[in-house]
Amino acid sequence: MAPENEIASDQGPATKRFEVGSELVDNLTVLVDGDQQLMVLNLLADLHPADNAAVIEHLPVDRARKIIRWLSPEDTAEVLAELDEEFRVNLLEDAHADEIATFIDEMDSDDAVDLLSELPEHVAEKVITSLEAPHEIKQLLTYEDDTAGGIMGTEFVAVPSSWTVAHATEEVRRKADVVEPIYSVFVTDDTGKLIGGISLKKLLLSQERVKIAEIVDSEPYSVTTDVDQEEVVRIMERYNLVSLPVIDRTGLLVGRITIDDVVDVMREEAEEDIQRMSGVSGGEEYTDSVLRVTRGRFPWLLMGMLGAGLAATVIGFFQQEVARAAILASFIPIVMATAGNAGIQSSAIAVQGIASGSIWATDLRKRFAKDLLVSVINGGVLALILGIGVVTIVGSPHAMRLALTASLTLVTVIVLATTIGGVVPLILHRIGIDPAMATGPFITTMNDIIGLLVFFLLSTLIYKP
Amino acid sequence: MAPENEIASDQGPATKRFEVGSELVDNLTVLVDGDQQLMVLNLLADLHPADNAAVIEHLPVDRARKIIRWLSPEDTAEVLAELDEEFRVNLLEDAHADEIATFIDEMDSDDAVDLLSELPEHVAEKVITSLEAPHEIKQLLTYEDDTAGGIMGTEFVAVPSSWTVAHATEEVRRKADVVEPIYSVFVTDDTGKLIGGISLKKLLLSQERVKIAEIVDSEPYSVTTDVDQEEVVRIMERYNLVSLPVIDRTGLLVGRITIDDVVDVMREEAEEDIQRMSGVSGGEEYTDSVLRVTRGRFPWLLMGMLGAGLAATVIGFFQQEVARAAILASFIPIVMATAGNAGIQSSAIAVQGIASGSIWATDLRKRFAKDLLVSVINGGVLALILGIGVVTIVGSPHAMRLALTASLTLVTVIVLATTIGGVVPLILHRIGIDPAMATGPFITTMNDIIGLLVFFLLSTLIYKP
Repeated sequence: MAPENEIASDQGPATKRFEVGSELVDNLTVLVDGDQQLMVLNLLADLHPADNAAVIEHLPVDRARKIIRWLSPEDTAEVLAELDEEFRVNLLEDAHADEIATFIDEMDSDDAVDLLSELPEHVAEKVITSLEAPHEIKQLLTYEDDTAGGIMGTEFVAVPSSWTVAHATEEVRRKADVVEPIYSVFVTDDTGKLIGGISLKKLLLSQERVKIAEIVDSEPYSVTTDVDQEEVVRIMERYNLVSLPVIDRTGLLVGRITIDDVVDVMREEAEEDIQRMSGVSGGEEYTDSVLRVTRGRFPWLLMGMLGAGLAATVIGFFQQEVARAAILASFIPIVMATAGNAGIQSSAIAVQGIASGSIWATDLRKRFAKDLLVSVINGGVLALILGIGVVTIVGSPHAMRLALTASLTLVTVIVLATTIGGVVPLILHRIGIDPAMATGPFITTMNDIIGLLVFFLLSTLIYKP
Repeated sequence: MAPENEIASDQGPATKRFEVGSELVDNLTVLVDGDQQLMVLNLLADLHPADNAAVIEHLPVDRARKIIRWLSPEDTAEVLAELDEEFRVNLLEDAHADEIATFIDEMDSDDAVDLLSELPEHVAEKVITSLEAPHEIKQLLTYEDDTAGGIMGTEFVAVPSSWTVAHATEEVRRKADVVEPIYSVFVTDDTGKLIGGISLKKLLLSQERVKIAEIVDSEPYSVTTDVDQEEVVRIMERYNLVSLPVIDRTGLLVGRITIDDVVDVMREEAEEDIQRMSGVSGGEEYTDSVLRVTRGRFPWLLMGMLGAGLAATVIGFFQQEVARAAILASFIPIVMATAGNAGIQSSAIAVQGIASGSIWATDLRKRFAKDLLVSVINGGVLALILGIGVVTIVGSPHAMRLALTASLTLVTVIVLATTIGGVVPLILHRIGIDPAMATGPFITTMNDIIGLLVFFLLSTLIYKP
């Protein structure tokens, strides 16, 4: 425990006392190799499980296994809950089913289910039979990973509305060790159906003899087990909730989602959004193997190359023009870059607006008008700059016609790419396809092809090489 | 209030009862234009302030102003806190300083400060003089926007450690209306310096006469006012906190950051990450004016075009080769697309890993080795596919040499772009520059140029047009 004065010290945030970094990893490596079990445990005992996990992930798996064996099952469970998926699976590869079961028995139900679903099926089955409460876990395993049922825990405090405040407080006490944290108490009717909730604040401030029914807040927010996790995030984020009750189809209270889980989902989805835009599939993690990383990146490189192959074909159609005026080839990067950039800009904004709920499917015309106006302005200014640049740099007798071709292409391409980028996500959303399909390599490839086609067509019409 | 049976019904999540969408906007428009004040208020009273804000943002600003005038100052304050920045500023453009002050008096201090800092300076000054507690707000305005001081609120419950549980509970009661929500009580020494905290759960379960000093959890997590908001997010996310005390340089407790604020920061930063990758600056919002959108997008289009201009120059150097073999121009898109894609893939992963703390500055060599291996495999396979494609499609006597040139280029470009993309962010991070600079247009442009240079050099060596 930190002495009081450390918090009030001038050293800045108290969390900076423990520098989790390569120095710690080096120290730990020496201690582990020297079998200094006690010193390793002392070192780790000072850290939060999340920090322990960060350090352990930076060790080779055999050293990490040694540490896991030295920790108590409770501590191992806490570290396991914080580790990355693939590292965790590697770490437990040579562990006995019984051993894994002792860790899982110490975990919160939602973390337990996550871990179980990553294990090979035959291992998971053996582990489940060794668990203290196999039925509860089996039930949780039936929900899809990315639904409310898949991320909820079964640890919560619920009381019937007929109880008193004193009785409810006793229930909080009874569950205090198992349910962590507790912000509110859910309230059910006599059959277990959710009817509302009471914040701990209200419970604390109410007289002991008051009936729960008199002070219950009828809880307007709850989700059924099958609600998508993105919808869960949206609800908890929008209405500033720290815990959300989960009910089954009949209204029976079956679980609870806490804000820390939602924060994890947000982080995960934000990372996936970036990765999808970058052409990486499968949620690449720092600890992933080379094979897994290669597999996640290959499809996009291939698709990008095939898409570029189409662009190459477009250029192939105009080989004679290029042979007559090789300078045309110099404009290919300019057309591709601006088409790509303009399309990505507007599609990113559209996809983001749809995801956050601030752009609606019905906003199509408004979006189109706005993107059109923005792209005419930006395209016009850039076309002017390019035109002046071409005349200045090229300086040949045909420079004016070349400049005109390039400028007209640029403004056309920016307008087309911007409006396509802005409108396609909304159309996809309207017809029920994930608009995020319109970000990244797809939209870029499409805009490249359209851009090159426009350029070479205009050059045959205006520049006439 | 919702009757009990609605929650237990089969309609799915209770939140779906109110469909916030264009239909509601249409209804509201008719009612507003018909001056049906009571019906408008009834309609909005059923919705959460966040939903009201979403609907109001979809109305023209004059209609929105009418609604704001009809609402009570409390309700207006709640809606204002949820509105997008630019819309909010427009909405209040013709409001009197006194009027704005009545709204701000009803807001939580962190929201109040956000709103005030958006107003034109001369308006903000007038508003502040009309506030009930101008000094507190003035103090908060001195902190930078994106620091702990900038996002904290001054609403919290704190008690000296010498008090009893009963006394602390009374303090919770006294502050219950002002501080919302309350998850824990902060504990200070007699001079107001933070020494720890107690969860409401612990307070509820402790005997009334027990001294706070006996049950206080010495709170290991707190931040000073100058800590960056990203660091605040990292701490609260990593250690699963729902509230975080903020102290000044002397250890005095001055504010509180709650998880809902952190969730907002996360959302905001995730959106900014995507926008930066897409070449959009300034945090474009759905409600932004055409001028603002244009300004946010222009610099990136310009930089992209200038970067492409460099690539055009590279091609210009090889004009004679292109004139002799126009087919070379067809390979420009393929080189650019694969170089761009490979670079974005690895830079996105590196930037993400650094941001989440899972990749450390010291991991440089490990990252490099991994990216090298991944890119050799992917590059090799793609080069093979491209080579076969070229021989099959081109079929001229020089097809073999062309295929060899293209394949060698591809593998070289993928290896270079991938390792550059993976390593540059780590180097930037090491020397203290934001690694996110390495995502988006910059890295793409650089890789385009390198890729084209490699292609044309290899083609003069191998293909010899």
